[in-house]
Amino acid sequence: MIKRPELYAFTQIADSRGNLSFLEELKDIPFEVKRVYWLNEVPEQQVRGGHAHKVGEQVIVCIQGAIEVVLESQEGERLTYTLDQPDKGLYIPPLWWGKMLFKDKAMLLGLASDEFSEDDYIRNRADF
Amino acid sequence: MIKRPELYAFTQIADSRGNLSFLEELKDIPFEVKRVYWLNEVPEQQVRGGHAHKVGEQVIVCIQGAIEVVLESQEGERLTYTLDQPDKGLYIPPLWWGKMLFKDKAMLLGLASDEFSEDDYIRNRADF
Repeated sequence: MIKRPELYAFTQIADSRGNLSFLEELKDIPFEVKRVYWLNEVPEQQVRGGHAHKVGEQVIVCIQGAIEVVLESQEGERLTYTLDQPDKGLYIPPLWWGKMLFKDKAMLLGLASDEFSEDDYIRNRADF
Repeated sequence: MIKRPELYAFTQIADSRGNLSFLEELKDIPFEVKRVYWLNEVPEQQVRGGHAHKVGEQVIVCIQGAIEVVLESQEGERLTYTLDQPDKGLYIPPLWWGKMLFKDKAMLLGLASDEFSEDDYIRNRADF
């Protein structure tokens, strides 16, 4: 059974001192967080991604700007998302090919279920 | 034995597509990450913090702009830090009173060793 992508809404506490968003593992996302990564100073209209994971799961959050995400299953199903709110997250299951377009000084925060391993990446579209 | 604050440097992979920074729990930081939070749209020169944790540990990262951090121990020791690089993190142990000044559209990413619990906070300076 292939898992499906899912949009999450996180708790946000907004007041005059700024916006605080947070998530707790297992409560807000369906795996234990083993790795946290963030992307900054990504050029306008830059495309990133272009790979799938064999077993690794991710939740990505656009904490500034906007990110257009395209996910494709091995069966050719194609899902698109616009992430442009810091309290929204996208769950990306294994075996979905992901591509992301960065706009408006976008910054991405990612949470991963595993430590980094090149072996977990499928980078060649033909292999997918 | 009171634990002491510590500055960490994380791995950064910088190229023409932007900067990727990441950390892995236990390898890069000394606790399992139970909660991740982020602050955005914090007004210029806003002060946040103003509390200590009884047992919770944190690592904070300034992923945009600059954050001036002041930590104070119960013995009155005072440490100051300027966080202004997305690949630097500050470990804040329990029982250090923290205050943060946000500058230059600063965004803060925080990783915590525990789920949110108001009981873990010391918010009254006199109690500290």
